[in-house]
Amino acid sequence: MKAHADKAKLDKLRPAIRELQALATKHGINDIFQDNGGKLLQVLILTGLRCLGKREGNDAVDEHGNEYELKSVNTLLTKSFSTHHHMNPVILGKYRKVAWVFAIYEGIELKALYHMNAAQLEPYFTAWERKWHESGGKDINNPKIPVCFVVENGQPIPF
Amino acid sequence: MKAHADKAKLDKLRPAIRELQALATKHGINDIFQDNGGKLLQVLILTGLRCLGKREGNDAVDEHGNEYELKSVNTLLTKSFSTHHHMNPVILGKYRKVAWVFAIYEGIELKALYHMNAAQLEPYFTAWERKWHESGGKDINNPKIPVCFVVENGQPIPF
Repeated sequence: MKAHADKAKLDKLRPAIRELQALATKHGINDIFQDNGGKLLQVLILTGLRCLGKREGNDAVDEHGNEYELKSVNTLLTKSFSTHHHMNPVILGKYRKVAWVFAIYEGIELKALYHMNAAQLEPYFTAWERKWHESGGKDINNPKIPVCFVVENGQPIPF
Repeated sequence: MKAHADKAKLDKLRPAIRELQALATKHGINDIFQDNGGKLLQVLILTGLRCLGKREGNDAVDEHGNEYELKSVNTLLTKSFSTHHHMNPVILGKYRKVAWVFAIYEGIELKALYHMNAAQLEPYFTAWERKWHESGGKDINNPKIPVCFVVENGQPIPF
């Protein structure tokens, strides 16, 4: 197999890629190329939040010990934020205790950051909880929060 | 919220990140930070394969029109290659028609590339097919190919 002529370009970028991963590793992100690692790094650095290092949920904490749920979306692909693949009252209990930071990307370019309190998201939490009980306790697969809801109700974070 | 002092470092890397994404976009990869996009770019460039642009499966094609299945693993996290979340005879039919390229990563560093023919993987295909039939036609969730099997039986691709 023969390498593409772009190999030289990639080789030239390699030191920067390694530097980015080293910065990510310092901030608790094992792999910039998976699970939006490179974007999470940017959000952590811009907000000053510290990653709590769990694989799912992108939990983070501020300097005062307040916990945050971080969510990102690529609006070129979808217009709503994913939440959790097994939504249930346990997850909702956690969601109600934290603040939220939403990052809106187009591709890999950050377009906006929003802060929301759990209380502002309560209409969604209530609806999911009702649905879970009405289904006899079946976990909900990844209920969504629309980007437009966050843009209309969230507090913009300057960056 | 106050940005982390590392913001200056990230800002300095931003042009390289954009250049990497531009190169990825040229090679059919929408987002380097998702689904191992940045690693897939490296594999495509090193092998000269062209991405067929389907989201799942990382299918690629060589200059002669031969199709390939591309798989990558991060051996810091796991010692086997993922395949497909709904393995069944239709997927197996496709798997038997293509050649395979396996990329072994430690974190974001490529350690080895291997080529395998479908015939070499037939022991796995046969076992999965049997399991599918014996279960009455239930799709298998992501059966694995061990890294050691690929290392022992594959043809190393120099890079």
